[in-house]
Amino acid sequence: MKIKNILAAALAGALAFTSAHAADPLPSWNDGKAKQAIVAFVEKVTKEGSPDFVPVAERIATFDNDGTLWCEKPLPVQLYFALDRVKALAPQHPEWKDKEPFASVLKGDLKTAAAGGEHAIMELMMATHTGMTTMEFEKIVKDWIATAKHPTTGKRFLDMTYQPMLEVLAYLRANGFKNFVVSGGGIEFMRPWMEAAYGIPPEQVIGSSVKTKFEMRGGQPVIVRLPELNFNDDKGGKPVGINQHIGRRPIAAFGNSDGDLQMLQYTGAGSGVRFCLYVHHDDAEREWAYDRESHIGKLDKGLDEAKAKGWTVVSMKDDWSRIYP
Amino acid sequence: MKIKNILAAALAGALAFTSAHAADPLPSWNDGKAKQAIVAFVEKVTKEGSPDFVPVAERIATFDNDGTLWCEKPLPVQLYFALDRVKALAPQHPEWKDKEPFASVLKGDLKTAAAGGEHAIMELMMATHTGMTTMEFEKIVKDWIATAKHPTTGKRFLDMTYQPMLEVLAYLRANGFKNFVVSGGGIEFMRPWMEAAYGIPPEQVIGSSVKTKFEMRGGQPVIVRLPELNFNDDKGGKPVGINQHIGRRPIAAFGNSDGDLQMLQYTGAGSGVRFCLYVHHDDAEREWAYDRESHIGKLDKGLDEAKAKGWTVVSMKDDWSRIYP
Repeated sequence: MKIKNILAAALAGALAFTSAHAADPLPSWNDGKAKQAIVAFVEKVTKEGSPDFVPVAERIATFDNDGTLWCEKPLPVQLYFALDRVKALAPQHPEWKDKEPFASVLKGDLKTAAAGGEHAIMELMMATHTGMTTMEFEKIVKDWIATAKHPTTGKRFLDMTYQPMLEVLAYLRANGFKNFVVSGGGIEFMRPWMEAAYGIPPEQVIGSSVKTKFEMRGGQPVIVRLPELNFNDDKGGKPVGINQHIGRRPIAAFGNSDGDLQMLQYTGAGSGVRFCLYVHHDDAEREWAYDRESHIGKLDKGLDEAKAKGWTVVSMKDDWSRIYP
Repeated sequence: MKIKNILAAALAGALAFTSAHAADPLPSWNDGKAKQAIVAFVEKVTKEGSPDFVPVAERIATFDNDGTLWCEKPLPVQLYFALDRVKALAPQHPEWKDKEPFASVLKGDLKTAAAGGEHAIMELMMATHTGMTTMEFEKIVKDWIATAKHPTTGKRFLDMTYQPMLEVLAYLRANGFKNFVVSGGGIEFMRPWMEAAYGIPPEQVIGSSVKTKFEMRGGQPVIVRLPELNFNDDKGGKPVGINQHIGRRPIAAFGNSDGDLQMLQYTGAGSGVRFCLYVHHDDAEREWAYDRESHIGKLDKGLDEAKAKGWTVVSMKDDWSRIYP
């Protein structure tokens, strides 16, 4: 009988270990402060009867996209989309051969194209992102993203999402959270693929947008994309976009750059337990290393404020056992 | 044994009847075409394996608010809110005594106030709805709506929602639908009370809005309401707002006026089974009777298009056994 008991206890222990291991919601996170902080936050707000308990309806989490959920180097993915669209549309625009920034893009000379600054980029975006109906644009994006590949890694962009962050999304969702993307990227560039990639439905995607217009075309009601900026969902625009779309303050926010700072400030300033996290790109070997001096994804003020406020700062190098799925 | 069987069968029949009766999801709807159409639609799109089946994620229903979910006569509720705010704010605005439309509002002379047309109404709205933070505005709305009463019925506005429509909301929700309000009313006027009144959370409320701005006040991040229209969620603005917030086409839409026509057209033009419904105010005794000639809630083109397209038109008089909860 004694031996039987010991065997049973050992078996139970082994099963418990296996089960705890299998149940690790964040298997691509190395044990450390960042992982512990995420788990501690979720356990706190989901523990019924605790003073930190948050009802399911209020479990709102917001995520930046570029550099937080997928790569943004050397250029944000949407810019590659715009460049590919310039090439695809060039036959219909013979005038582009002599017109900047299009001429340089068509020659593959991105440096000269970028010399026109924000104005040039806006011109590229409007020329490639507007004029069609929303349904037509959705199809263009879906077709492109299904195969488009990163210029240096050769991977599909869709395979350059961050596995540890996919686990955070799933972990929060399993704990009753509603996850929203809040990105400077185009709202209609993101929606067509985020449900499959992140489990985030279109109505939980917030982004920059162009103006649109309802009209009848051939007896069919359509929404047409106009070449005019409607909303810039970056910096102070992020809390504004959150308020406009969600109408309540998130209890958790995840970003990677100074463009996310106001979202984290707004989230952190709510009453009760709040969670703010910065992904710090410090892994030149497996991804990219950049912060205070970077033109894209600059993280400077945010890094200081994270220290001052005790926000969680993730070291991609140390905290993540793998980067991509 | 035979008698026992008969008794058992009778009992089973009685129970089935009770259960079917108790399970009527639309008890305030009289049996008729409108009720049958709603139930038939829901049964079609939720029947797995059927060609009309719609996955839960795509079960999006949109509802106008004023005149569709609650009363809008003699004036839309939000206008009473604005008038009450003018009175409450008058001590801080001595100049209003000599300035239209404020002077007439303060004298209780709405006709003269309204003589200024849309411009005057916009001035009233901006003076009473902006300048404060979103949190301050939310509290003002919550405090007001908790007690504010209708000028002729004496009921609280919150008790002048339509019971049959509350049942439709609950019925759809129970069948996996996500219900959105899509209203010309102010988005931040509606959000503070719609979760309790309709079971619709803030992130599923779409409406007209003013511009807002993120800023730090006393070290605290706030969002400030600015006296400038951001979005007019009416007519063609409704499909635009739906696309902006939801990013997919509803499969069911409910309205009561020509202001909802484009939303119904956009919804109805999708592929697969779609459901469009107009509430027709034809009950002067229990509510109000108005349509083609009404200034508020005008239903003219919509009534013609509903006939032409076979949309469901609800007679409040004949289809609803009760109006208010």
